[in-house]
Amino acid sequence: MAKAKLRLSKKVYQSRASGLREQLVQLQVELKKVPFKVLLIIAGPEGAGRGNLLNTLAEWLDPRGVETFSYHPPTENEQAHPQQWRFWRSLPGIGRIGLYAGSWYTETLRDEARSKSALGHVAHEAERIRDFEKLLVDGGTLIVKVWLHISKEAQGRRLHTLQDDPSTAWRVTDEDWHHHRIYDRLAKTAGMIRASTDRPGARWTIVDAEDERARDLKVGQLLLTQFRQQQKKIVRLTRRSTPRQVTSLRPIGLRRLQALPLNQDLSEKDYDALREKWLGRLNRAVRAAFVAKRSIVFAFEGWDAAGKGGAIRRLTSAIDPRDYRVISVAKPTDEEKHAHYLWRFWRDVPRNGRMVVFDRSWYGRVLVERLENFCREDEWKRAFGEINDFERALSEHGTIVVKYWLHVSHAEQLRRFREREGTPHKRHKMNDEDWRNRKKRASYEIAVGDMLALTDKENAPWHLVPADNKRFARLEVLRGASRQIEAALGL
Amino acid sequence: MAKAKLRLSKKVYQSRASGLREQLVQLQVELKKVPFKVLLIIAGPEGAGRGNLLNTLAEWLDPRGVETFSYHPPTENEQAHPQQWRFWRSLPGIGRIGLYAGSWYTETLRDEARSKSALGHVAHEAERIRDFEKLLVDGGTLIVKVWLHISKEAQGRRLHTLQDDPSTAWRVTDEDWHHHRIYDRLAKTAGMIRASTDRPGARWTIVDAEDERARDLKVGQLLLTQFRQQQKKIVRLTRRSTPRQVTSLRPIGLRRLQALPLNQDLSEKDYDALREKWLGRLNRAVRAAFVAKRSIVFAFEGWDAAGKGGAIRRLTSAIDPRDYRVISVAKPTDEEKHAHYLWRFWRDVPRNGRMVVFDRSWYGRVLVERLENFCREDEWKRAFGEINDFERALSEHGTIVVKYWLHVSHAEQLRRFREREGTPHKRHKMNDEDWRNRKKRASYEIAVGDMLALTDKENAPWHLVPADNKRFARLEVLRGASRQIEAALGL
Repeated sequence: MAKAKLRLSKKVYQSRASGLREQLVQLQVELKKVPFKVLLIIAGPEGAGRGNLLNTLAEWLDPRGVETFSYHPPTENEQAHPQQWRFWRSLPGIGRIGLYAGSWYTETLRDEARSKSALGHVAHEAERIRDFEKLLVDGGTLIVKVWLHISKEAQGRRLHTLQDDPSTAWRVTDEDWHHHRIYDRLAKTAGMIRASTDRPGARWTIVDAEDERARDLKVGQLLLTQFRQQQKKIVRLTRRSTPRQVTSLRPIGLRRLQALPLNQDLSEKDYDALREKWLGRLNRAVRAAFVAKRSIVFAFEGWDAAGKGGAIRRLTSAIDPRDYRVISVAKPTDEEKHAHYLWRFWRDVPRNGRMVVFDRSWYGRVLVERLENFCREDEWKRAFGEINDFERALSEHGTIVVKYWLHVSHAEQLRRFREREGTPHKRHKMNDEDWRNRKKRASYEIAVGDMLALTDKENAPWHLVPADNKRFARLEVLRGASRQIEAALGL
Repeated sequence: MAKAKLRLSKKVYQSRASGLREQLVQLQVELKKVPFKVLLIIAGPEGAGRGNLLNTLAEWLDPRGVETFSYHPPTENEQAHPQQWRFWRSLPGIGRIGLYAGSWYTETLRDEARSKSALGHVAHEAERIRDFEKLLVDGGTLIVKVWLHISKEAQGRRLHTLQDDPSTAWRVTDEDWHHHRIYDRLAKTAGMIRASTDRPGARWTIVDAEDERARDLKVGQLLLTQFRQQQKKIVRLTRRSTPRQVTSLRPIGLRRLQALPLNQDLSEKDYDALREKWLGRLNRAVRAAFVAKRSIVFAFEGWDAAGKGGAIRRLTSAIDPRDYRVISVAKPTDEEKHAHYLWRFWRDVPRNGRMVVFDRSWYGRVLVERLENFCREDEWKRAFGEINDFERALSEHGTIVVKYWLHVSHAEQLRRFREREGTPHKRHKMNDEDWRNRKKRASYEIAVGDMLALTDKENAPWHLVPADNKRFARLEVLRGASRQIEAALGL
């Protein structure tokens, strides 16, 4: 009863809410101008009012800038993808606020309530969540995390009040009572998860939820404050540093690139015979992967005019068109430009038993984006690790990651550029940018070298393909793919 | 052997191909300027070279403007949606060419080959395909359909040649031989499907596939010719007719709207009690729907300031946040603007056991788009039937479609507009457009009336909700939903 006296009066609440709403709507207007993603995660025990708070926020905010998310147990389709895939798919658009009534946290706790999970498992989940949130935060997303606190006694009181009134009794489920009984255990687990996921940019705030009105105001205020901080940070970060001279992070990669012999010989006749042989072998390997429900991701990188398109067409000619997709990675669309650079690739990750060929890939981050100053130095430097994490997530799920760098000499590239310009139906393949990039060959070689040195991992090795001889290169692509897939399947 | 003499020489082929490629790339440039969707469907028996043709076209065209599609048997997730859902999801972007190596046709024939389907089943499939293609064609899409013809003898010869060479034997499967044996039966079924899906804007062309070079040139040429025709049609169609006076198509709807009494009375106390009662009933109905794996689609329409948002928040307060999504339908994005107007709604159709609430809906086509001249007269007139078909497709799949029109009087709307303008945190809800729309009340009433008269179907009836009294309206929404869901489930 003492509690009741502390409640915020309706009048005070309404006057404060009115001011807050104005500011929140203003926030949304500003968010459209300097856009980033905002995630508001609402967690807490049953009866703390997650649903009511969500409804209040939905009423306060302009609905055109809000998306609401929650999670079911993964569907069959979601299970056929790496675990993070569904999280990547349920992010708000740029300049929008995502309200998470249920979230990765709620689901982990719900599991715990059903069957006491080993604490080790919970810790592992928490670690995954932390990595995912870190990636988003590093990419400029604001994550506001609220834990609604309510005591065991208050929880019991609320459940009883609802249960005792026939018109509201339906609101109380058996699961609610179960959670009430094991309140202490759940609180302890939740505390542990919070502690290990409380990181810069994704801080937990515990909000007393006993007084509903104070609770709603507090959360609204928190959103405002953290938004203002993030806004300042974003404005500061978007000031571009002046481009510096390109220097190697790890010269060993550059040396590996430059040591590659490019003088291979292969007659058309020999090529024809070998090609059919290796296409057959690749076909068998790919079919075996599909039977084993393993997915395959190909990433093709290489110099302009190195022959990526032709190599891809030969590769896919061995495969049932229903089993693969080729994704030509062009300049990002507006939507993609504002999203995390890995988002568009996560979106197209194949489900088990399928294959996706990326014609250019996420490595654009450490190549063109690095050299053209499309991202900041801290961003492309961080990208090596992020890319390794991304590919590891794929491998851990069972995806086979096959990466190629198609290498042509500076002289051979010139010959091909001139041939393209001289052939009417090939002219569209050339533009001024190609010539500009060509002039930066030395810088690009350094970037490619760093990429080779820093992202050549056992689970996702680079195939360095000599491509001055097109026939040889195409064969190398087939050979590399066949062998890597066979090895992954233990054939 | 006589056949071989007829083959196109390599030299002639290369010279013709070179000219064709230039024109095809030019086509792609023009397609970006006056964009529409192009679907090229390649069908035909095994050995006719669907895959090779696809590879040739992929080489000829600029890959940045091409997407390739094919179909697997539906996944569990696809089966949990209406049958057309996956087709809607696999359309090329606007201004792009979709190449379909496998398609709805190939899959239907593959089924037939496996187990002699009853011809009735095939006929039913063909009808579905025809309706789907008609909708796309009416919306401005070009569908080029090619049937690659090869005789039974030539097919046998090709399979033998491949089989006899050890390096290509892998290309021939048991299924190929099976298809060869039942060549005549498959040809007959295919002929029947072609006959019943050969419609204006989606014509079949039979292409002799015996000579591979001639085949590829023929298909490239066909794409060019049909593209030019479509381009002219699109330019002609985009000339807007001058808006005419708005007149009723079916005055009975307008009369129904104007006859609705709006003077309901309901005290706050009565409302509170009744609300909890009906929320409970709705909660039970929704849970029963989920157990029965039925999905629910809500469409909220109504005058500006009629209280749609508030009604939706009350409705959803009875439902587990994980089970529903609210989609606020704003002005279409660039991507949506260029797509078929139903596309964005098809995209968000819920899977079995889920619920989606549309705050404004596909009815925008016959309301704002009709009155603001955002589409042509033939388009919005056709929309009534298209919308009925859309909702019937949902119902046939088992989706419960609940539609509301929230009706406020002209006077009450004025009161609410003024209140919004006088309240700082509500001001953002108002803009000049609201005032402009208000002036067109008489025209809008006619459009709403036509909508009520022409789309009030047994499987998707309109709930006409008197909304001058907000409390009464919210209760009516709950009552309408509960009763319709209960009836659909036979409770």
